[in-house]
Amino acid sequence: MKNKAIIGIDIGGTNIKAALVTGRKIDHRTRASTRAELGPDISIEQIKSVIEPVRKAAKAIGIGIAGIIDSKKGLVKYSPNLKGWKNVPLARILRNAFGLPVYVLNDANAICLGEWKHGAGRGHENVFLFTVGTGVGGAAICEGKLLFGAHGFAGEFGHTTINLDGPKCICGHRGHVERYAGAKYIVARARRKIANNKSLLAGYDTLTPEIIARTAKKGDKVAREVFAEVGQYVGIGVANIIALFDPDIIILSGGIARAGSILFEPVRNTVSRATLGPEHRRYKIVPAQLGDDAGILGAALFAKLTVTGSSV
Amino acid sequence: MKNKAIIGIDIGGTNIKAALVTGRKIDHRTRASTRAELGPDISIEQIKSVIEPVRKAAKAIGIGIAGIIDSKKGLVKYSPNLKGWKNVPLARILRNAFGLPVYVLNDANAICLGEWKHGAGRGHENVFLFTVGTGVGGAAICEGKLLFGAHGFAGEFGHTTINLDGPKCICGHRGHVERYAGAKYIVARARRKIANNKSLLAGYDTLTPEIIARTAKKGDKVAREVFAEVGQYVGIGVANIIALFDPDIIILSGGIARAGSILFEPVRNTVSRATLGPEHRRYKIVPAQLGDDAGILGAALFAKLTVTGSSV
Repeated sequence: MKNKAIIGIDIGGTNIKAALVTGRKIDHRTRASTRAELGPDISIEQIKSVIEPVRKAAKAIGIGIAGIIDSKKGLVKYSPNLKGWKNVPLARILRNAFGLPVYVLNDANAICLGEWKHGAGRGHENVFLFTVGTGVGGAAICEGKLLFGAHGFAGEFGHTTINLDGPKCICGHRGHVERYAGAKYIVARARRKIANNKSLLAGYDTLTPEIIARTAKKGDKVAREVFAEVGQYVGIGVANIIALFDPDIIILSGGIARAGSILFEPVRNTVSRATLGPEHRRYKIVPAQLGDDAGILGAALFAKLTVTGSSV
Repeated sequence: MKNKAIIGIDIGGTNIKAALVTGRKIDHRTRASTRAELGPDISIEQIKSVIEPVRKAAKAIGIGIAGIIDSKKGLVKYSPNLKGWKNVPLARILRNAFGLPVYVLNDANAICLGEWKHGAGRGHENVFLFTVGTGVGGAAICEGKLLFGAHGFAGEFGHTTINLDGPKCICGHRGHVERYAGAKYIVARARRKIANNKSLLAGYDTLTPEIIARTAKKGDKVAREVFAEVGQYVGIGVANIIALFDPDIIILSGGIARAGSILFEPVRNTVSRATLGPEHRRYKIVPAQLGDDAGILGAALFAKLTVTGSSV
């Protein structure tokens, strides 16, 4: 019998998650600690350990991983969350170990493929997805095809400038989208506000965007202000995306995508104010639907499309 | 004998230029005044007058025109330079008049196709072209295919925000690229400077970006400063393009593209400072090569590719 499943793998800085994927169906989930602090050799052993139990049922492996990925060569050029990963030929290493074809792509690209095929982007031909977490990533489907660009780095939404005189981003440049929407900057914005205002947030030792969102939903004025402001910055960035890509759907993925209207309302209001010719456009700005599964499903889809020679 | 030529037409606010195009070869140029102030009916008669002398040698017509164009329907939804053009079914009107297939696309898209196939973009698969004139337009070739987006408006570089607290653009929004690089804003920048500084530019009653560029080349300090500043703003915008599209070549078209190093040096310096991971990228920022012919060649190419069912 021909194996039809594909092993989809999502490699993060903390955990490696894998599963057998057949279309939209996810079976045999496996998981391991990335042990990123111990360097690539140990992390690769951890990756192998999640593949081993499911290898016999699979015809290919697809991997999503944060960083600068050369998908054509299956090379991880650099990964911000994985210590010491520099030009690691991940596809070759795993192909040699398991005798299966292996395909590697950037994590935001994997999530975008997953949401496009099985989640919020179903039926759309022009999709821009961005992920908001520690960092802010992005990926584009242009006319039914995932955009890689000349080096595979297309879609870098987080490091686009919206405010050239603005505050410095972690990368050293000013006024990037990530400088406003990255988790630690959202938290810092809240901390500045609670220093001078009464807020339920003052009761937390550790703040996260998720806590701020929950508190905002309870009606806390300061927490709501945080998301109103972050939403305006994100909205300016999204208006740029609309000007350049003209998507019919923009999908927001990552933890704060679940914040609901306290985030989406200021984003949508800003976008509709900041976009030229809104009367000629139809677009939606929506939360992702698949949560953590998007990356696994998208990585598997990438492998499937590549192994069958379809365009992605 | 089978006609192989295609009529390429470039419709501007002042002139309509047409020619018979066979590959890179341009024959039988014709031209007429657009008479835009008299409304669409008169301008359409003017368009017919440039087609008439060459119709018998052609198998199709391709038209580039500024504005919001629905290329699938051959519809000019709106054109900023043509008075009263609203939902004009230009392709249908001309098809009925001449019995030839007619294809219409945005002028920046036409220029981009022309430069890609025959000019500065030859051999590249990921191209971003932007035009700087009265307005600032743009267009993208992504992996060998012109990007239209969901409504045909992709590539709107001029109205992307780089400075959300910046000065207001003609469109009402703040800190757009066009607000810094559009012709009248370049001239206004020069005028502010010559009010307080000695400059050869003070000798001109009417200033244009071209005059400022020529004066800068003569070593005039104020004129050079104008381009150094404009180049920095444009460079931030181009860095955003690199982050989002990851092109291997960026082509600057329009009058000031001929300014040479006084413009390209600050643009290139800013881009290389403002781009993440420059060591992993190879890209060029170059002037367009075809001048006014790019639009005619690209419009003809669009018609050729569409009429033969090739993807564009």
